[in-house]
Amino acid sequence: MKVLLVVAHPEPRSFCSALHNTAAAVIRAEGHEVSVSDLYADGFDPVGDRRDFRAAADPNFFKYQKEQLAAVANDGFTSDLAAEIEKLSRCELAIFCFPLWWFGVPAILKGWFDRVLAMGFAYGGGRWFETGPLLGRRALLAITAGAPHERYTERTILGDIEHVLYPIHIGVLNLVGMAMHAPFIAWASARRSADERAVLLAEWRGRLAALPNECPPPMRRVADHPDPLAGTAGAYRL
Amino acid sequence: MKVLLVVAHPEPRSFCSALHNTAAAVIRAEGHEVSVSDLYADGFDPVGDRRDFRAAADPNFFKYQKEQLAAVANDGFTSDLAAEIEKLSRCELAIFCFPLWWFGVPAILKGWFDRVLAMGFAYGGGRWFETGPLLGRRALLAITAGAPHERYTERTILGDIEHVLYPIHIGVLNLVGMAMHAPFIAWASARRSADERAVLLAEWRGRLAALPNECPPPMRRVADHPDPLAGTAGAYRL
Repeated sequence: MKVLLVVAHPEPRSFCSALHNTAAAVIRAEGHEVSVSDLYADGFDPVGDRRDFRAAADPNFFKYQKEQLAAVANDGFTSDLAAEIEKLSRCELAIFCFPLWWFGVPAILKGWFDRVLAMGFAYGGGRWFETGPLLGRRALLAITAGAPHERYTERTILGDIEHVLYPIHIGVLNLVGMAMHAPFIAWASARRSADERAVLLAEWRGRLAALPNECPPPMRRVADHPDPLAGTAGAYRL
Repeated sequence: MKVLLVVAHPEPRSFCSALHNTAAAVIRAEGHEVSVSDLYADGFDPVGDRRDFRAAADPNFFKYQKEQLAAVANDGFTSDLAAEIEKLSRCELAIFCFPLWWFGVPAILKGWFDRVLAMGFAYGGGRWFETGPLLGRRALLAITAGAPHERYTERTILGDIEHVLYPIHIGVLNLVGMAMHAPFIAWASARRSADERAVLLAEWRGRLAALPNECPPPMRRVADHPDPLAGTAGAYRL
């Protein structure tokens, strides 16, 4: 299996980085092919703009999706971005390790989504969800959270964690066609003892070992939802 | 009234930028004080790391919140970041103009949240939600969305827009104590005619003129939710 590991933490000795390093070691030890995007170590630039492209399709008005479509057609992404697109394109499973910052991914990883999931490569021409270009691939979020699980429930202050992760699971990864495994979340990891962390890492190793044979839950599908715009003048395709 | 406008779009002639420019003009014309953070124009760096700080509280291990607490205590933020913190601190109303990218804010704005809403300034010591340090301030999201509203409902493929914005409304801005006005959303704005856009801008001007006297809905409150950890060894304060 080809696995892409993306990690977004500024401290290489953090627990989040330990989740990443453990994933790399376990997956390599089982003979799978691993490629890595260590966004902080690589100095990944998360700002999507004209610098994504080697040339401008429209030098007078910057429309991001239009430039992305042109770059997909003309091999026009800058080399750093082309390398990330190639890595994602080749993988069968992507694992994203990150700390939950403000109910989402750190900006450096949000920018990886913004830039790498380019129109024409990851969606477009009506291809999304069950017809998404990345269909057949799977993904998993491995998260360190500041708060304990008890605060992330339907009744408690922070709300259901599924609600918190909805934009990433549905609006990013399902949308491009990737099936999402249940996330691995290290709750309140900064407050854990060394022993508790060792237990968490053991759990994570167990999950990783089982992952190749784990079947992700069904992804969100267009076919399961009514489309009030079907066939109308207001219809359009992403 | 003191108003902070934050805009995150790479094209100054985009409709999103028009929402921002309209807001600046209307609010200034009504005699309010406006400060602006134009993140793309300013070259704002969204990557949160050691470069946020003039010195290291712990040079051996980078714990973001620990460095933020030290910087709040010692005036230790770099000048670009200190300027953003000062602007947010001084405002009574913040308006964020951005295109909805991947069910969220562009990375450049996510990084503004990551870096500016520093522990010790925007939360911490048990202060969050109704005891958040930014309590009394209000905020509003002005969004350009690629899809029409009909696709963002509970039954349709993209889901309820309230669900999509939950992390930003609740997990970012309510959390630091800011009350959220209902968002202004320009649906499928890239597909609108010039006439339709003029109507949208007129609506936006009307909304802006009424905003000083508009009362935002009640914000999420800790007091309204059970805390299963209250008084236990697992309790902790953000």
